[in-house]
Amino acid sequence: MQLIDGKAVSASVLEECRAQVDSLAGKGLRPGLAVVLVGDDPASRAYVRSKERTCIELGIHSVKMELSTETSQEELMAVIDSLNEDEDVDGILVQSPPPPHIDERAIVLAIDPSKDVDGFHPVNVAKLALEDPGGFVPCTPLGCQRLLGHYKIQTKGARVVVVGRSMIVGKPMAMLLMSRGELGDATVTVAHSRTADLPEVCRNADILVAAVGLPEFIGRDHVQEGAVVIDVGINRVEDSVAKKGYRLVGDVNFEDVASRCRAITPVPGGVGPMTIAMLMSNTVKACAQRRGIETGDLA
Amino acid sequence: MQLIDGKAVSASVLEECRAQVDSLAGKGLRPGLAVVLVGDDPASRAYVRSKERTCIELGIHSVKMELSTETSQEELMAVIDSLNEDEDVDGILVQSPPPPHIDERAIVLAIDPSKDVDGFHPVNVAKLALEDPGGFVPCTPLGCQRLLGHYKIQTKGARVVVVGRSMIVGKPMAMLLMSRGELGDATVTVAHSRTADLPEVCRNADILVAAVGLPEFIGRDHVQEGAVVIDVGINRVEDSVAKKGYRLVGDVNFEDVASRCRAITPVPGGVGPMTIAMLMSNTVKACAQRRGIETGDLA
Repeated sequence: MQLIDGKAVSASVLEECRAQVDSLAGKGLRPGLAVVLVGDDPASRAYVRSKERTCIELGIHSVKMELSTETSQEELMAVIDSLNEDEDVDGILVQSPPPPHIDERAIVLAIDPSKDVDGFHPVNVAKLALEDPGGFVPCTPLGCQRLLGHYKIQTKGARVVVVGRSMIVGKPMAMLLMSRGELGDATVTVAHSRTADLPEVCRNADILVAAVGLPEFIGRDHVQEGAVVIDVGINRVEDSVAKKGYRLVGDVNFEDVASRCRAITPVPGGVGPMTIAMLMSNTVKACAQRRGIETGDLA
Repeated sequence: MQLIDGKAVSASVLEECRAQVDSLAGKGLRPGLAVVLVGDDPASRAYVRSKERTCIELGIHSVKMELSTETSQEELMAVIDSLNEDEDVDGILVQSPPPPHIDERAIVLAIDPSKDVDGFHPVNVAKLALEDPGGFVPCTPLGCQRLLGHYKIQTKGARVVVVGRSMIVGKPMAMLLMSRGELGDATVTVAHSRTADLPEVCRNADILVAAVGLPEFIGRDHVQEGAVVIDVGINRVEDSVAKKGYRLVGDVNFEDVASRCRAITPVPGGVGPMTIAMLMSNTVKACAQRRGIETGDLA
């Protein structure tokens, strides 16, 4: 059984980004990422801080906008507009979830698609479906694909089962892996809460991607001997022994499943670190693309 | 074995459209569909004529624009712009395929998404992925879904295999049937030319949708006993006995497969007639929606 090391792979993605940032610097360009936080949710705050820190490490210009919980839709829209206009900003991300009075969908629509490094704007959703490489793919599925690529796990002709049909992970993951090309060409099934006999469906998978948001939901009976398991879940479960009173577990029961697997991602340290790395990668891509430079030509 | 009668179901869809057109007429409104034909391909000409005829039968305002093969991209764009502006036109469709010098993608992008009754504009592609009922779904997959609904073939929890990953049929079909709701909630697999052991994958299907464009490609070994088979293919094969020198066959070898099926669509007379019916349905929807009327409130 191979443990898929998301920390190591994300480090290599970040290394690649750093080289691209250096290469852009040689052209007098510096990618910029704006992260907008509305409210004071501690978890969101921590995510935003970690994005800022990673930007700084890579030499990416970081703009952090911290807005109060009372910020109105109009005020937030005005912030997005100004970031759309800002030539130093290549990527714009509004940390999710915003407070309940904010219409998140309208905010996503307001972001310039060429700066939509989260890949949630309809223009980018459509580009993924249309297999247009110029679009932005949501960071988590993009990170999963990168993990598979790094470990030379062939997707071409493989049977993939994605459990979960969210717009953030499940559907873009399916689209990405069924697309034509070296890291695609898989036969993809999307399973979900309405799927009949889920364990049996999952046992068909050469590659199983779990994105259901239920702690340790995927067990031994869901996994075919020799399968590759990608665990997208990050769930807090109470743990009186742990310092913080909780521990993080995935959607997969790791202990139960690992011994059957050809390869598996741990939680934490699997998909998690990839998400932020792909955000950086998308930001570099946005910077290059907005100036008509091919990222392939960098570094 | 039940023969799925696309002619009968399309007639009932058209009947419904007619009632909605009458209801709109009561409000002083008349849906309009503009069909643009570039060049003189006889098959395209026949399709356009048939769309025009159906419009007229239903009381839908029909605008037929016949442009010469030499029409430039700019001229075609100007036509689209004027149709976008035309208050009497609710739906715009450019008959495919246009001549090779035309950039079809750019044309699709130029169509006002609120008039994109083909459902190919990125805004509508994204709305389908986002499960937004306000978008337009491509007519062929929408017609297939309607056939399933009409025959009360349950999709919820069913295993669907879609063979083919085109943007016109395969992918929107998959999106539609995996969406939440009464006519969705299926566990969908998209298979294609790179799929390993396609017959075995197909034999998992409770509902098999064939959209590969290969005459009689799907045979007995692809079909589970008791499966429902929806054949999207329309292929011409030479036939010296036939008057025209050819006959139409689907992607499914009907003779080989029919006896195993719970239900199956014939070719012709299955999915084919549904496509044009759903185009009319989308046009009525566009007319109502552009005026803020719920189609559910009509007739």
